Amino acid sequence: MMSGVILWFTGLSGSGKSTLAHAVATHVGGVRPVEILDGDEVRRHLSKGLGYTKEDRDTNIRRIGFVARLLARHEVFVITAAISPYAQTRDEIRRLAALDSIDFVEVYLKAQLNSLIDRDVKGLYQRALAGEIPFFTGISDPYEPPASPDLVVETDKESVRISTSRIVGFLASRGAIPKHDGA
Amino acid sequence: MMSGVILWFTGLSGSGKSTLAHAVATHVGGVRPVEILDGDEVRRHLSKGLGYTKEDRDTNIRRIGFVARLLARHEVFVITAAISPYAQTRDEIRRLAALDSIDFVEVYLKAQLNSLIDRDVKGLYQRALAGEIPFFTGISDPYEPPASPDLVVETDKESVRISTSRIVGFLASRGAIPKHDGA
Repeated sequence: MMSGVILWFTGLSGSGKSTLAHAVATHVGGVRPVEILDGDEVRRHLSKGLGYTKEDRDTNIRRIGFVARLLARHEVFVITAAISPYAQTRDEIRRLAALDSIDFVEVYLKAQLNSLIDRDVKGLYQRALAGEIPFFTGISDPYEPPASPDLVVETDKESVRISTSRIVGFLASRGAIPKHDGA
Repeated sequence: MMSGVILWFTGLSGSGKSTLAHAVATHVGGVRPVEILDGDEVRRHLSKGLGYTKEDRDTNIRRIGFVARLLARHEVFVITAAISPYAQTRDEIRRLAALDSIDFVEVYLKAQLNSLIDRDVKGLYQRALAGEIPFFTGISDPYEPPASPDLVVETDKESVRISTSRIVGFLASRGAIPKHDGA
């Protein structure tokens, strides 16, 4: 029996967290139970009423961490897809996961802000730049990149297929999924 | 592989929810993964800031239901130990569980209010009666007993051992745990 894993994606809005979460889940789902905790969905279910101050964001992220640990304790492979902008809060969840012998894998979805603004899939950056969305990460609210992430994927330079393949390969090399399913 | 189960305890403060949750978990834990979602613990992790109005209680219960479903989807046997005073909210969670093919078992921990006040293990009833705790279920806030619970245990008349044995026996007869482990 493999131990639980929390694959924690962190990155700006539009950096590909949800897309890569689903792509990786498809790979991993063949060999072990997977659950995706999507930032927006979790907010709706667990954090309605919370806003986007540092305190509220941290509370939301801690709740995602709590649920992720509960699932990972039962050998579920959990993928979280939330901006999670604050380094200290991510590190806190890593420490709590370690107490439960859960493998916490932090993956930084790195993308230049300019390329995200250019792409602007959901039209959010345009609105944020126009001042219509307050506390927008990267524009009017901070994002703290991980100092030492377990893996960095540059989603503005790599295709989804390449990023997925690199993440799956990394997980296999780490023993978080069986080797023959890697990459 | 057995389908997920949510064993949902409902009952007044002091009716034995946490005690029975742990007793049943000991029985079930031998044969399948178990997680207890305790009302107080979940409030601390997922619902800090919520109060005890109907709306806030319902939000808290819906969050417990959300997490319980996530776990039960991965074949975890989930036991919830929260007052969950409102019938409609419990029924809503039963319906949502059914959509995920999760077996929802509602157990009513029935105890006369007088006997709970007499016992008053945590001293809460005395304080509630003195008006020191507002919105206290059964004293200054409503409790709606289930109209058709799957099982009723009368915790003011039965020992913990008997109630546990009846619940475990019921679970076995329902196929929620293997038969030879029942009672």
